[in-house]
Amino acid sequence: MNGAETLVSTLVGQGVDICFANPGTSEMHFLKALENPKMRSVLCLFEGVCTGAADGYYRMKGTPASTLLHLGPGLANGLANIHNARRASSGMVNIVGEHSRAHLKYDPPLTSDIEGLARPLSHWVRTVDSARTVGWDVSAAIATASEKPGRIATLILPGDASWQEAGEPLAAVPHAVARPKAPDVSRVENIARVLRSGEPTLVILAGHATRGRALALAGRLKAAAGCRLATQFFTSRIERGAGRVTLERIPYAVPQALEFLKGFKHIVTVETTEPVAFFSYPDKPSLLKAEGTSVHTLAEPDEDSAAAFEMLLDALGAADATPVLQARLDPIVPTGALNPASIAAALAAALPEQCILVDESLTTGRETMGLTVGAAPHDLINNMGGSIGYGTPVATGAALACPDRRVFCMVGDGSAMYTIQSLWTQAREGLNVTTIIFANNSYAILKAEYANMGAGAPGPQALAMIDIDRPRIDWLAMAKSMGVPAVSVDSADAFHKAMVDSTREHGPTLIEVRL
Amino acid sequence: MNGAETLVSTLVGQGVDICFANPGTSEMHFLKALENPKMRSVLCLFEGVCTGAADGYYRMKGTPASTLLHLGPGLANGLANIHNARRASSGMVNIVGEHSRAHLKYDPPLTSDIEGLARPLSHWVRTVDSARTVGWDVSAAIATASEKPGRIATLILPGDASWQEAGEPLAAVPHAVARPKAPDVSRVENIARVLRSGEPTLVILAGHATRGRALALAGRLKAAAGCRLATQFFTSRIERGAGRVTLERIPYAVPQALEFLKGFKHIVTVETTEPVAFFSYPDKPSLLKAEGTSVHTLAEPDEDSAAAFEMLLDALGAADATPVLQARLDPIVPTGALNPASIAAALAAALPEQCILVDESLTTGRETMGLTVGAAPHDLINNMGGSIGYGTPVATGAALACPDRRVFCMVGDGSAMYTIQSLWTQAREGLNVTTIIFANNSYAILKAEYANMGAGAPGPQALAMIDIDRPRIDWLAMAKSMGVPAVSVDSADAFHKAMVDSTREHGPTLIEVRL
Repeated sequence: MNGAETLVSTLVGQGVDICFANPGTSEMHFLKALENPKMRSVLCLFEGVCTGAADGYYRMKGTPASTLLHLGPGLANGLANIHNARRASSGMVNIVGEHSRAHLKYDPPLTSDIEGLARPLSHWVRTVDSARTVGWDVSAAIATASEKPGRIATLILPGDASWQEAGEPLAAVPHAVARPKAPDVSRVENIARVLRSGEPTLVILAGHATRGRALALAGRLKAAAGCRLATQFFTSRIERGAGRVTLERIPYAVPQALEFLKGFKHIVTVETTEPVAFFSYPDKPSLLKAEGTSVHTLAEPDEDSAAAFEMLLDALGAADATPVLQARLDPIVPTGALNPASIAAALAAALPEQCILVDESLTTGRETMGLTVGAAPHDLINNMGGSIGYGTPVATGAALACPDRRVFCMVGDGSAMYTIQSLWTQAREGLNVTTIIFANNSYAILKAEYANMGAGAPGPQALAMIDIDRPRIDWLAMAKSMGVPAVSVDSADAFHKAMVDSTREHGPTLIEVRL
Repeated sequence: MNGAETLVSTLVGQGVDICFANPGTSEMHFLKALENPKMRSVLCLFEGVCTGAADGYYRMKGTPASTLLHLGPGLANGLANIHNARRASSGMVNIVGEHSRAHLKYDPPLTSDIEGLARPLSHWVRTVDSARTVGWDVSAAIATASEKPGRIATLILPGDASWQEAGEPLAAVPHAVARPKAPDVSRVENIARVLRSGEPTLVILAGHATRGRALALAGRLKAAAGCRLATQFFTSRIERGAGRVTLERIPYAVPQALEFLKGFKHIVTVETTEPVAFFSYPDKPSLLKAEGTSVHTLAEPDEDSAAAFEMLLDALGAADATPVLQARLDPIVPTGALNPASIAAALAAALPEQCILVDESLTTGRETMGLTVGAAPHDLINNMGGSIGYGTPVATGAALACPDRRVFCMVGDGSAMYTIQSLWTQAREGLNVTTIIFANNSYAILKAEYANMGAGAPGPQALAMIDIDRPRIDWLAMAKSMGVPAVSVDSADAFHKAMVDSTREHGPTLIEVRL
């Protein structure tokens, strides 16, 4: 077995059995090793799709995917979505090809400092020293990526380490299952005292706490202690909809966030930090809590938040409290004009049970996505890193992780153009993704931000850098170019119908929502 | 004046009067400053288009453009084409937005180590410390970018340095014009001895030596000394075609390069190094010269190669030698099937005088682009860094640098998909670019490289990572989606006609060459 074969065998032997790839000459032996029947290889036409898909895969599956990237520039193309994945605590194993060491000293054209490029956004970086060590190296990468929270591991594979003899794979050494740390007892006791005081308290949940057992326990806590439950504006994944415990959402805009938070005497954080503004503005604060609000940590991101909630409920003698669960709102199909409210209503009515909602709707969804909370139960995924172009790749990976669930990817037109190559992979793999393009022909969010920054009203040059209406993107042609059937809608009822139609057949669809 | 206004005023005051931009919230004051009527702002829908366009602009204009990128991920998206520009010695001033320092300490979602991301591929990186210093900082960036060879300068602009009061711009301090160093006399004398010996000598030209006065002088040297003149396989820009001194091209494939180089006793390098293989292969050498060949440097990249040729001609008493100039080959329009030879013949017949040829044709053009050498005089631009997706952005920037010349951008389908968003900017700005997509529905070059690597014939999984034919990309729909008129051709005569037609009207066109 050569180094590349050992690497792939070790990956699949340890449960990393999907690879989002865009190979080049230096990865030909890796390509040959991908013939391993246990590995699923998914070709992406741009590396930002590879890394975003790995993020989406992790969010739904909870275990890392691998990527194959071509030297420094291939890694560079994937970095923006690695940033987003890192901020979402998604684990990922990146394999980056490199020249053989004997060749590197001549500084051939594709040479760059790959470790230097990888380090700012990876938790772990290693260059394979020899084919003989590649099994151990990739095992360490998988173990790192599988920690809680998930981590970015980047392994650089020189050509000679790929093609030289490596010995047998390390399939017998499965990577350690991520075991979160136990919560701190004194912190739990302190928060129990806070809650017993009856002072207004907001519990902010993130990470693993926004789903499953932890979320159900948080519902009991709310019922027993009268606290409120919320998330930051963005969360990596929320289990949401009818029958679930509903979490409020701290607003994005600074004035609204200040207003939301001003009544709380205490903030309790679960796998997150106290609320911070996304951007800084000349005349607005960075920290959003009111003066005098105390912040208490119930669980750090590497701790077991479900266990922390259990301990807290026990301390309060409230283990049997009955949570209030979200009611199913009447799915009333809206008619008439498309606007944020009618769009949200159409979504709430159309979303099928157990669908996955990837939200990069920005302006269109920012104020109204809360209206979908009474839809059928579903998972909601947000962009945690703020780099646009995350939505369509994450939807691609989520659909591969959950082939039996439909993914709705809601994306602004400006964001969609960043990584539009995702559509091709969705068509190639026949993925159940409904891409919803909110076509307002503008980076609309920047118009508001221009004013928020105190820059006044944008002049013609500034507007020319915000509006993307010359030319208007023809989304039906764009979808067709990559083999995805598409439809345009300009009313709320047509939007609803298009979404329902998209669930009737397998494979991807695109809906242009003309705003 | 605030920091952003000072920055833009200083840029235009020192001749950097174009900005390829993709802004975000943290760059709103910069956007306002772009209202400066002396600055041309060009919106790109992805940062890889911004940086590639800046590269193309520099190659034709010889002075740096600026880019505006949104925080670390925006820079990351531009890095692959920054790598290509760096390898082409193109100067560039990147302005990267950053959070205000007061905000950074809270680690908001878009935070990353921007300096760390910039450093591996920039020659110069600085974070603005205060609005008061921004004029000096950007002046230093411009001076660095304007050196010979051109350099990558990356200036990071925190929000507060952007919006705070900065004083007057430094418009009165124009940046130093790049003055190359004088060549080394003893090196010139040594090379004169080599040439007098009559031993077979190859002179390899690059950088500024492949055009203008240096190229004409090289032609005299060849006539006087009987040496041969060549370029590396890739060159940043060559003046070429009828009436010019023709340079041979060292082949890309290692066996052919070895064969080409084996007869030379001496290699003389001009603004380049001795030939090195692009990739390393298990059974092939990295250095391509024959055993016993001596390498002599006539001019380093930061030296004046035209002066070096003059000194050499004087030393040989050959200042008045008459160079052999390329004859205009009969422009015979080919007919029938499309193949590399008929494609090159159609190009040679169709290329109008003073057009610009951006070559990312890979498999389709690799062996045959030499056949276009007898076309009307034109400039040829190659990818120096090897990261695909350089062609369409570079063509965009070249068209903005030379609005009166048509740009032909020859690009493989796989490469074109990397930065296809360029088409939109070409439509928006009405640029005279004819994009020629060689649609073989494959990363075809990898099929040959698979065998070259000793991996044998690709199996079905490997082929699935090489062929991009499921689905086939519909290039007419793709062009339409971004407002570019397009035509498909499946014969050499139709290809020729489409190229000629594209020159008859202003604005962009796309030709799909179906292979």
